[in-house]
Amino acid sequence: MSELFQNIPKIKYEGANSKNPLAFHYYDAEKIVLGKTMKEHLPFAMAWWHNLCAAGTDMFGRDTADKSFGLEKGSMEHAKAKVDAGFEFMEKLGIKYFCFHDVDLVPEACDIKETNSRLDEISDYILEKMKGTDIKCLWGTANMFSNPRFVNGAGSTNSADVYCFAAAQIKKALDITVKLGGRGYVFWGGREGYETLLNTDVKFEQENIANLMKMAVEYGRSIGFKGDFYIEPKPKEPMKHQYDFDAATAIGFLRQYGLDKDFKLNIEANHATLAGHSFQHELRISSINGMLGSVDANQGDMLLGWDTDEFPFDVYDTTMCMYEVLKNGGLTGGFNFDAKNRRPSYTYEDMFYGFILGMDSFALGLIKAAKLIEEGTLDNFIKERYKSFESEIGKKIRSKSASLQELAAYAEEMGAPAMPGSGRQEYLQAALNQNLFGEV
Amino acid sequence: MSELFQNIPKIKYEGANSKNPLAFHYYDAEKIVLGKTMKEHLPFAMAWWHNLCAAGTDMFGRDTADKSFGLEKGSMEHAKAKVDAGFEFMEKLGIKYFCFHDVDLVPEACDIKETNSRLDEISDYILEKMKGTDIKCLWGTANMFSNPRFVNGAGSTNSADVYCFAAAQIKKALDITVKLGGRGYVFWGGREGYETLLNTDVKFEQENIANLMKMAVEYGRSIGFKGDFYIEPKPKEPMKHQYDFDAATAIGFLRQYGLDKDFKLNIEANHATLAGHSFQHELRISSINGMLGSVDANQGDMLLGWDTDEFPFDVYDTTMCMYEVLKNGGLTGGFNFDAKNRRPSYTYEDMFYGFILGMDSFALGLIKAAKLIEEGTLDNFIKERYKSFESEIGKKIRSKSASLQELAAYAEEMGAPAMPGSGRQEYLQAALNQNLFGEV
Amino acid sequence: MSELFQNIPKIKYEGANSKNPLAFHYYDAEKIVLGKTMKEHLPFAMAWWHNLCAAGTDMFGRDTADKSFGLEKGSMEHAKAKVDAGFEFMEKLGIKYFCFHDVDLVPEACDIKETNSRLDEISDYILEKMKGTDIKCLWGTANMFSNPRFVNGAGSTNSADVYCFAAAQIKKALDITVKLGGRGYVFWGGREGYETLLNTDVKFEQENIANLMKMAVEYGRSIGFKGDFYIEPKPKEPMKHQYDFDAATAIGFLRQYGLDKDFKLNIEANHATLAGHSFQHELRISSINGMLGSVDANQGDMLLGWDTDEFPFDVYDTTMCMYEVLKNGGLTGGFNFDAKNRRPSYTYEDMFYGFILGMDSFALGLIKAAKLIEEGTLDNFIKERYKSFESEIGKKIRSKSASLQELAAYAEEMGAPAMPGSGRQEYLQAALNQNLFGEV
Amino acid sequence: MSELFQNIPKIKYEGANSKNPLAFHYYDAEKIVLGKTMKEHLPFAMAWWHNLCAAGTDMFGRDTADKSFGLEKGSMEHAKAKVDAGFEFMEKLGIKYFCFHDVDLVPEACDIKETNSRLDEISDYILEKMKGTDIKCLWGTANMFSNPRFVNGAGSTNSADVYCFAAAQIKKALDITVKLGGRGYVFWGGREGYETLLNTDVKFEQENIANLMKMAVEYGRSIGFKGDFYIEPKPKEPMKHQYDFDAATAIGFLRQYGLDKDFKLNIEANHATLAGHSFQHELRISSINGMLGSVDANQGDMLLGWDTDEFPFDVYDTTMCMYEVLKNGGLTGGFNFDAKNRRPSYTYEDMFYGFILGMDSFALGLIKAAKLIEEGTLDNFIKERYKSFESEIGKKIRSKSASLQELAAYAEEMGAPAMPGSGRQEYLQAALNQNLFGEV
Repeated sequence: MSELFQNIPKIKYEGANSKNPLAFHYYDAEKIVLGKTMKEHLPFAMAWWHNLCAAGTDMFGRDTADKSFGLEKGSMEHAKAKVDAGFEFMEKLGIKYFCFHDVDLVPEACDIKETNSRLDEISDYILEKMKGTDIKCLWGTANMFSNPRFVNGAGSTNSADVYCFAAAQIKKALDITVKLGGRGYVFWGGREGYETLLNTDVKFEQENIANLMKMAVEYGRSIGFKGDFYIEPKPKEPMKHQYDFDAATAIGFLRQYGLDKDFKLNIEANHATLAGHSFQHELRISSINGMLGSVDANQGDMLLGWDTDEFPFDVYDTTMCMYEVLKNGGLTGGFNFDAKNRRPSYTYEDMFYGFILGMDSFALGLIKAAKLIEEGTLDNFIKERYKSFESEIGKKIRSKSASLQELAAYAEEMGAPAMPGSGRQEYLQAALNQNLFGEV
Repeated sequence: MSELFQNIPKIKYEGANSKNPLAFHYYDAEKIVLGKTMKEHLPFAMAWWHNLCAAGTDMFGRDTADKSFGLEKGSMEHAKAKVDAGFEFMEKLGIKYFCFHDVDLVPEACDIKETNSRLDEISDYILEKMKGTDIKCLWGTANMFSNPRFVNGAGSTNSADVYCFAAAQIKKALDITVKLGGRGYVFWGGREGYETLLNTDVKFEQENIANLMKMAVEYGRSIGFKGDFYIEPKPKEPMKHQYDFDAATAIGFLRQYGLDKDFKLNIEANHATLAGHSFQHELRISSINGMLGSVDANQGDMLLGWDTDEFPFDVYDTTMCMYEVLKNGGLTGGFNFDAKNRRPSYTYEDMFYGFILGMDSFALGLIKAAKLIEEGTLDNFIKERYKSFESEIGKKIRSKSASLQELAAYAEEMGAPAMPGSGRQEYLQAALNQNLFGEV
Repeated sequence: MSELFQNIPKIKYEGANSKNPLAFHYYDAEKIVLGKTMKEHLPFAMAWWHNLCAAGTDMFGRDTADKSFGLEKGSMEHAKAKVDAGFEFMEKLGIKYFCFHDVDLVPEACDIKETNSRLDEISDYILEKMKGTDIKCLWGTANMFSNPRFVNGAGSTNSADVYCFAAAQIKKALDITVKLGGRGYVFWGGREGYETLLNTDVKFEQENIANLMKMAVEYGRSIGFKGDFYIEPKPKEPMKHQYDFDAATAIGFLRQYGLDKDFKLNIEANHATLAGHSFQHELRISSINGMLGSVDANQGDMLLGWDTDEFPFDVYDTTMCMYEVLKNGGLTGGFNFDAKNRRPSYTYEDMFYGFILGMDSFALGLIKAAKLIEEGTLDNFIKERYKSFESEIGKKIRSKSASLQELAAYAEEMGAPAMPGSGRQEYLQAALNQNLFGEV
Repeated sequence: MSELFQNIPKIKYEGANSKNPLAFHYYDAEKIVLGKTMKEHLPFAMAWWHNLCAAGTDMFGRDTADKSFGLEKGSMEHAKAKVDAGFEFMEKLGIKYFCFHDVDLVPEACDIKETNSRLDEISDYILEKMKGTDIKCLWGTANMFSNPRFVNGAGSTNSADVYCFAAAQIKKALDITVKLGGRGYVFWGGREGYETLLNTDVKFEQENIANLMKMAVEYGRSIGFKGDFYIEPKPKEPMKHQYDFDAATAIGFLRQYGLDKDFKLNIEANHATLAGHSFQHELRISSINGMLGSVDANQGDMLLGWDTDEFPFDVYDTTMCMYEVLKNGGLTGGFNFDAKNRRPSYTYEDMFYGFILGMDSFALGLIKAAKLIEEGTLDNFIKERYKSFESEIGKKIRSKSASLQELAAYAEEMGAPAMPGSGRQEYLQAALNQNLFGEV
């Protein structure tokens, strides 16, 4: 195998002052932070689809990048060339995980039996490739939104036949995920939603989705899959409304249908902001519900209303993300770069620049978040802020042993309470800036 | 008592062609639609706060309207003048319900005991006023967001004393609601949320809110309150994030904390769109979860990012609202006009124009929705659309007796499914326009 | 030539009560409104790209509709089949105009000389086809955003070679537009904008765009083009920021560079709302600046942040559009359906349902707007509202013969002015609903 | 005069590592950056309204902060106490400028003659106070939006009397601004816009606004005002639509009415993002049009749709702001903190924390922007990016001596151009992060 990215050396940590753009400036795999190495804290993954398949097409224009890797697209040779390219890419960056949809791996055939046989072939090839490396599969999934048959969704489709086809794809994707040793299996509800309520039975569709997930769990457990299933919330796009709108909605759905023991959430930054939430908010809601499992590491544009899937750049966001992840005790999954180069960044070098940006931004986030936690800036403030609940009446409230009458009597005795202490938001923001920017 | 709105006659139905702007053009209380009178279908309510208290102040300017009703604001005389004005207003419009916060009714005193005694006095006055009329209380609530002490919320406050004060207000508001025969009791989470995650323990706060609601339910049931409790979702404003973001979030919360037997939702149109949903979506989600209880009937501006609380005007929206309400078998609550005149509409006449607009828009919505249902335009299409689930494999799926393997085997046998039938959105939209606009 | 849409009859007006979904319910070409026929008021156009080329691909999935018209895409035979299909389509609907980009008409070749020769061939074919029909070209344009070479824009590109290529495409598109008798020529700034300010010289790019437009005007006039040039504002998508953000921005640009004598605006409903404006607002701003030239008739989803290009459905919007157009004395251009079927509406019938929806929605809008104007509801109110400027001091202000000191002296004499009269928004909205819904 | 903020010492620079929250960590007034002191680069101003008047009221709750300064609000004694407090505040922070509306300074009387006499008195008091300090007036303005009479705007009002009243207020505010030596005079179009187009004559209103501005310029120049007039764009709030939507719109308006020689823009960060633009975008558009005059230094919440006026916190934004300002050669105005403490930050200390946050964020932005410019990271890349326009054909284009035919001939010769070079956005973003975060 000849090297595709032959002009690109293995990417190493050279320090912030390095003028080498093809180097890490912050990500140092072996550096110890809070007792663990950076690479342990940050199980980064390459997304097969963005990195090896997508080439810059948008709604108004065609591919700008070349992802043929020298071969004709749509062939099994090309599929293998993508594996080669992907492994070369991951090795040069020191990335230890990959994520895939079934149809990222092979060209889909007209008959599912043929597609499945291609998946067997390519997964053999990948397995072989994995030997002698420490590269692993983070998670797999089935693409049930690109093929026209999924025009009305997969679990939420109005066609029982399409529903069965989705089941078959999930079964195979689970087989491949287990074969490749994947840590998780993801459901992103690509077209599980509606275009218009004028023609939609929401209850019927949601029941069917839940049922499909239940069958997937049962099958997965039956073939020895021990990892987490993940729902990845997204509020809209491609559908006008997607059922897994945000973390709170997805958690409610999982509990309603008894899926919460097997599922956690895969939180994507860009999906969070499309839903009107901050990335940190979605992580927090997942975490306090015991549901924070994995992260799709990217960034949206706050002034644009669609999924731009940019490489993570804003260190405020990566810091608060890592703060939540550290508080969560890490992830059962990892940090998947569901991110793509901007369309004008169409060269091989840009692929590396994108990942360097993303990995460095998260390395900075980890360093800064660890410092925040070590210094206790936020935690001490918060502990102090709620301390009135350690008083006698406060403890009674917290232990749920008070009645409304009792609290009312206490209030009437009091007449009127004092103001709660200042929230000190500006002070805390200044403290955060000092944490981030240190000496200048 | 002299009439405040003396120049304004009782508002009657005069037909669409009437040139009288102080007449109903569509709302005809006794008109029969789908076997019930309009007034039975549409239990409209006047919101004490917008109609009798608010006077046009916004963040950039002072009152434009005069709601002194000839007396000095802040006195009990003024409080009673508001009762007089409110009843005169409701009688002229034929509105049968009102909704209130505690502090809409009386000026708040420094000590809660004094405030409570004022509430006793005013509720006696209102009870007296209700005699001989068929005006009733739709629901009551406690304002736990305007007083500075609630700067960090009520149930979500960081002060145990403020929490107790909130409990005392709820207790009294429940007492008054029961005294006035109110059908429901509402929790709108005014400041139950956060300004910044830098200083907030979300889990702690949500547990406290749930606990407060539980105590309220227990107390309410103990004093004979048989109505529904309601949560009114809103995503943001005044807080940066409000916990009751939308219907799905609120339903998930109620179930998580075992509150779902006593609570339903009060869905507000403007809150729906601020959350990124259509009004119809929020009604549907509530309804299919058995949680659609009441409606705050207003309208937002889709290009503005705050709660404009406009009178309902868009008949597309009122039609789809009434479609959902009719499908839901009506409401346990009603249609509360949580709406205010635009600031430049500051005269007494404008108060009536606002309600005429709102009541006529809902009357049109009811007529159009009833016709939609009677003609079966949408329902027949939807039934047909999902009929593949009446096939053998479809029934197996619906009855949850299939396994993933079984469906996969079926799919492999099939090879590839046919496309699902067209969604026909444009055809359905044209049919809706024909329903709305009829002959021209 | 066999008929592609053979199962679809010529679409006729059958009246609102008709149950035939393949009929007009409101659009009656010969019906007289305000002294002109509907077809004179409403010069509808078919957009070549959406109707004959696009097939349902979105960022997450492939084509659902079949626009091969029985031939292999990418061939000149297919290009001609599209012409045949387009004319059959327009004739069945009674549409009299079409709009096109150069590359909608023919497959683009590797060399521009070959592409141009194909354009000669297809325009001959179209010209031939036009004979014996009353179908005309509304406007033409060059697609300078889909080909990867335009990744950084055309007029705003950083490559002088690409800039020249754009010039060549414009020249040819102008030639073809003139050859086909087009009434206008459009510049939609597809990628004229930026992805990031980190690498962009905005001033340089804007000067180049203006310069390209100036050359286009000079060339166009030199070959006898007498129609209007149009800018079509759009705020974002595909680029993060598009220079022609909205009507006000585009008008400012045209005036700054001396292009305002030759250019007007082509206002698209969906672009208006993406820019944070109502459709009516953009029409009004264009009209009062003498710049309202043509309309892209579609509709966006107010809860989605991208260009959904839906068929016009909301009769509030079409009514206020036609109100502005009638006040403007009509258009120099027409109403181009820059609209596409929803992806699940993928059949030939859906193509017709989409246009029927759009044409009927505008027919309703025309009827309602004409009635608004005839009855004077809004106009009389507005005239009355500003009448204080017909007073002595008011006239002085309007005639610009007053000084600040003079007005200040007048104010000091007055002490304080009375409140301006109520804006009566709710009354006017109720009047609009009566206009729209009439008797029920 | 006793000190109000007696517990708060003069705020000094103590370095990033200082644990003193009441110290600057980055703002060091005398530090030299690019040849000038920080205080010369950063002419910060205190906004009278937010800092001395506003106390935390929002649409859902009352004041949380105490801005009585120990006296009854609404009296001239209180007005003078505010002056005392303001000067003490500015001196402790080392702020050299203030900005004011007329009615920030004194309570408005029923008669404008009385208000004006109060303005005379307070401006004497301020002048006296200024002696012996180096505190100056940055700009003044008239509040023509809070009083109910301005319900429909000032220049855009439908009442000629209100228009005259506005003229009188502007005249007096100009007098006071000149008396206090103000560097500029601002027009923020508080209610210059509309609530609904149903009752609005946009053209009439815009002409009146322009006319009022013209009279103001003439009067201002006649009394010796040599500074800039500023328009401050804002897209919405309080009005549904505000005419000065964004920089491009305001610049177009100024040019259309011949006001561009006397006016520049005052760009506010939060208004930029409400208009759908980045702060940097609005600064760039102003700057390349020679219109960047002053800055309202604050920050909005990208997930909220109203003007939150937060203290500047995000150093990405302050860096790119200072990059634009440095490229602009500085400002004729300054950096006015049009920012307020979050409602829960209600103590005197919070007032200082807010300004420390804002001043430090801008100090960081200045340091980082200066480094960006010195190192040439962006500038060199941009220069290289457009270098094809230094070729023969490129120069011809730039010098406007080419024709469309000539460029087309060049393109046909070429056949097809090469792709423009990669935009390298990810690389540039990584470089920016290295600039911001340096060594860790």
